[in-house]
Amino acid sequence: MSSDKSYKWFVDHLSPHETHGHGIDALVFSGKSDFQEIEILDSKSYGRCLVLDGKMQSSEIDEYIYHEALVHPAMLNHPNPKNIFVVGGGEGATVREILRHPSVEHVLMVDIDQKVVEACKEHLPQWHMGAFDDPRVELKFLDARKYLEETKTKYDVIIIDISEPVEEGPAYLLYTKEFYHLLIDRLSEAGTISLQAGTTAPPYLINFRAVCQTLLNVFPIVSPYQVSMPSFGLPWAFALASKLTDPTSFSPDEIDRHIAERIEGELKFYDGITHLGQFSLPKYLRRELQKKKRIIEDNQPLYLYV
Amino acid sequence: MSSDKSYKWFVDHLSPHETHGHGIDALVFSGKSDFQEIEILDSKSYGRCLVLDGKMQSSEIDEYIYHEALVHPAMLNHPNPKNIFVVGGGEGATVREILRHPSVEHVLMVDIDQKVVEACKEHLPQWHMGAFDDPRVELKFLDARKYLEETKTKYDVIIIDISEPVEEGPAYLLYTKEFYHLLIDRLSEAGTISLQAGTTAPPYLINFRAVCQTLLNVFPIVSPYQVSMPSFGLPWAFALASKLTDPTSFSPDEIDRHIAERIEGELKFYDGITHLGQFSLPKYLRRELQKKKRIIEDNQPLYLYV
Amino acid sequence: MSSDKSYKWFVDHLSPHETHGHGIDALVFSGKSDFQEIEILDSKSYGRCLVLDGKMQSSEIDEYIYHEALVHPAMLNHPNPKNIFVVGGGEGATVREILRHPSVEHVLMVDIDQKVVEACKEHLPQWHMGAFDDPRVELKFLDARKYLEETKTKYDVIIIDISEPVEEGPAYLLYTKEFYHLLIDRLSEAGTISLQAGTTAPPYLINFRAVCQTLLNVFPIVSPYQVSMPSFGLPWAFALASKLTDPTSFSPDEIDRHIAERIEGELKFYDGITHLGQFSLPKYLRRELQKKKRIIEDNQPLYLYV
Amino acid sequence: MSSDKSYKWFVDHLSPHETHGHGIDALVFSGKSDFQEIEILDSKSYGRCLVLDGKMQSSEIDEYIYHEALVHPAMLNHPNPKNIFVVGGGEGATVREILRHPSVEHVLMVDIDQKVVEACKEHLPQWHMGAFDDPRVELKFLDARKYLEETKTKYDVIIIDISEPVEEGPAYLLYTKEFYHLLIDRLSEAGTISLQAGTTAPPYLINFRAVCQTLLNVFPIVSPYQVSMPSFGLPWAFALASKLTDPTSFSPDEIDRHIAERIEGELKFYDGITHLGQFSLPKYLRRELQKKKRIIEDNQPLYLYV
Repeated sequence: MSSDKSYKWFVDHLSPHETHGHGIDALVFSGKSDFQEIEILDSKSYGRCLVLDGKMQSSEIDEYIYHEALVHPAMLNHPNPKNIFVVGGGEGATVREILRHPSVEHVLMVDIDQKVVEACKEHLPQWHMGAFDDPRVELKFLDARKYLEETKTKYDVIIIDISEPVEEGPAYLLYTKEFYHLLIDRLSEAGTISLQAGTTAPPYLINFRAVCQTLLNVFPIVSPYQVSMPSFGLPWAFALASKLTDPTSFSPDEIDRHIAERIEGELKFYDGITHLGQFSLPKYLRRELQKKKRIIEDNQPLYLYV
Repeated sequence: MSSDKSYKWFVDHLSPHETHGHGIDALVFSGKSDFQEIEILDSKSYGRCLVLDGKMQSSEIDEYIYHEALVHPAMLNHPNPKNIFVVGGGEGATVREILRHPSVEHVLMVDIDQKVVEACKEHLPQWHMGAFDDPRVELKFLDARKYLEETKTKYDVIIIDISEPVEEGPAYLLYTKEFYHLLIDRLSEAGTISLQAGTTAPPYLINFRAVCQTLLNVFPIVSPYQVSMPSFGLPWAFALASKLTDPTSFSPDEIDRHIAERIEGELKFYDGITHLGQFSLPKYLRRELQKKKRIIEDNQPLYLYV
Repeated sequence: MSSDKSYKWFVDHLSPHETHGHGIDALVFSGKSDFQEIEILDSKSYGRCLVLDGKMQSSEIDEYIYHEALVHPAMLNHPNPKNIFVVGGGEGATVREILRHPSVEHVLMVDIDQKVVEACKEHLPQWHMGAFDDPRVELKFLDARKYLEETKTKYDVIIIDISEPVEEGPAYLLYTKEFYHLLIDRLSEAGTISLQAGTTAPPYLINFRAVCQTLLNVFPIVSPYQVSMPSFGLPWAFALASKLTDPTSFSPDEIDRHIAERIEGELKFYDGITHLGQFSLPKYLRRELQKKKRIIEDNQPLYLYV
Repeated sequence: MSSDKSYKWFVDHLSPHETHGHGIDALVFSGKSDFQEIEILDSKSYGRCLVLDGKMQSSEIDEYIYHEALVHPAMLNHPNPKNIFVVGGGEGATVREILRHPSVEHVLMVDIDQKVVEACKEHLPQWHMGAFDDPRVELKFLDARKYLEETKTKYDVIIIDISEPVEEGPAYLLYTKEFYHLLIDRLSEAGTISLQAGTTAPPYLINFRAVCQTLLNVFPIVSPYQVSMPSFGLPWAFALASKLTDPTSFSPDEIDRHIAERIEGELKFYDGITHLGQFSLPKYLRRELQKKKRIIEDNQPLYLYV
């Protein structure tokens, strides 16, 4: 029997010339929404995975890295976050991490794709862990940008948890200067946002640079950081942008104290030393941000390969 | 014409159930030595690559990350490294980085596979940049372990730059407790070693843990560190082990001063902040090292999948 | 959306150096029996497929070619086949084709793997079309060779519908001289057998030659024939062996008349001209059978790559 | 060592959802002409291969099947072929087979792509075997259609040996009704043409049907035939079209006598029985040609996937 060899594969095309292949055991869910193709599958190395339009979104084995890295640095960058807005976040794991902060009074999650959220609710219980049922959580299936344009509410933290900007995909207008101006307007005084900022692999740095430079065009404080999430096949960047507080001003001990005081349960990825490590980018990445500016605008969007 | 699509591929099997595929332009060299299959190929995303037994060893686009990370932390951990030993290092880039330290008087590189070194000399000039011709460099094609058993010379820094331990491969006896005991005996008083310590991807942490735990069984100071080298397809660990000095005791400013004073030319990857970042491992990796000990011994080797 | 590109694949390894990849929509069934791994999947080009131990067994789009080619030449080679034995035949399509011959009074199908048959019953209704429920059909889950050794019954036609002979697989003892001697003993006077005889692709002719030569060692009349079944990725051979009648003695008109008189419903693949074409092997295949004999025996089996 | 496993691959995309992968040893030649990407590579299973725009054109192991099947039926369909025109034929193997007919006085080969021919001359000596140097052969690098439009010469046999009709590729205007009208005008009284007519795999029959139906729109006699050439990954059709003689009117014995009298050297694929077999198409292919007509015209071309 050939049980030591995979013959069913999910092939993630990182670029036209680079692939990341995952031997799979089962296709748990396949569907198509108005916005994207949705797959939930069980891979042999990374467990259950969410795949949108053929791209890995998160895996059972390392989603905690992604979601802890996306949520907690931003939450701790605000002194007392009560009102939180989540753009996207279909798996429910971003909300799960937000709810670990007892300061939180209300989380509004706006995801354009109801089908994704419903598939995740049913098939990714390890991700959301019931977060959608928490009374503090409100869920709307709308265009988040349009919603923010029409509301006057201020948020303490806005977490942007969306897929990459691809042509005809649902996300590209959530990566532009205009959108970031809208976000800063909707933030409270010490307001902070965080988002994934593309791969930091040397062949594909254009997106990382453009996202960071576009944020810097709008926010007074922008702190990119890097994590290793092997299910993505490439190293990955996030960025935290805020109106007031620089996350790199906190020492590891301060972060550890904040975690002890302000987060329930135990984290697996994030702590003071992790914080220090992730914000200490290698020299070539810091240099990259000094290169010629590429500002992403509504009428000059940046599309990545799918 | 289909120029935007790759149909020639190098497929790196990261595990039986995970692959990393590279669209390729050309096969520059193919050969077989007594020890391994040797390929040098031009990939579309990572440029020229060295592949041994089907596994990526280093790529033109990110080899500086690997070689700067492997060499400079160890070199700066010794106050005045003069006599250097390199185990493996076929590409010549490890020696290239060592030679940037003017303190160095002699580098002995011992690689078991002459064919690899000859192929690299001819086809990877961007890697070695003539390092093999430096009068301070001595090159021997021998079993490095046997050589070290028979010599009485002491070395200030020993850099281990070899492929992963696989069954029937040339390297597995260079990852054992017995070999590390030999190394510590051949080090001078402030002697330091460095080596790659396997992937830090959560599904495959066994090797990282075992290498670090085996080092800790022998050396008083062991400092693992992590870098992102996307051509490998997975995040990767290194480890520095020394008799005297803890590399994490240096501040970023001290590292930057040492670099300015002790390294010629400009580095692309490594500096004080990079140093701080790479040694600040995320929480789950530090936890991993607390788990049940797995000591690698000559008669209990650890083989990785090829 | 990337709907024009497949990222979920079933990869059939035709050899260590040749693959046939199928973009897939769904994994309908995955299981493991005592004998093999069982998959039923929906491919984009060939529809539903049965896969055993990672090898394509039959596809919705071209299974009629396989099953008509396997069954009808043998059935028409006997003047009045009443009692039929099927070795293997898990999908039920072989029995389906046999039942189209009104002469048939009893079909005994012996498949070692009950799990395969149950999965096919549930998920491949287009294959069996209810054949398992026909009162003329008897189904046993046993080792067919052992069963035939112990019975004294004579059969008019024996159809061998099994996977390829691979090490540790369930089939290799059903391809030997000893087994063929057993078959000829269990055949009635004008008895005929048919079986798949491996690929006719030039790089892999060893199996085709050995199967035919082994049959010729036992049967007075052996007629190999070739069909194109693209889901297999390679051209494929069958062989008919009989005690009395040479199938190539029938003209296309005679075959067409036999079909009209003796088979219910309309065939899609097989008719008089098809018969003529498939038994008219190209010169290089006829030559292959003249080469040095390779007789497959119980203690000198032939294993194919999986 | 992992010598039993391929990690360098040529992946032939048969369709967006079907691939044929070849483990490769070496890339012998890579280039780009004004018309297409050109590769010559050494595969592990099929030896040396010519690949144009990522599609397999012919392989060392089975090119004799393709070239004997393309050339000899057409040549023997004419009583005394002296003047031959070849459209395409870059490898030189088509000319090689034509020159085995001593009746031939002149072969004009017109291939649009000089770079392909030069690469084949240098790297595929097993294909052309010096045919380009034969004094009967004239070679022009032109658009064959334009050339034929401007000449008044009549040819006894015209062999069309070109790649498939793909958008922006060089070949699509050589598959239209208008081109076939041009060909019939340039044929002598008993003139015959032959060409490859696409795959006969059930999922992709549109091309086979349209090519045959378009030929039937122009020629009084059209005889499609099928061969198995495993390097193509799919079964393949050819078609012979003539003004006078039906190739299926010859018995195997007549073909064998013609071969003995009119072809020098020994053939490996083609003889009387092969002839009978290849023109005896299975029922489903003959049925396919009865389906709704699809005539290919200059302004209604048929493009296949690349």
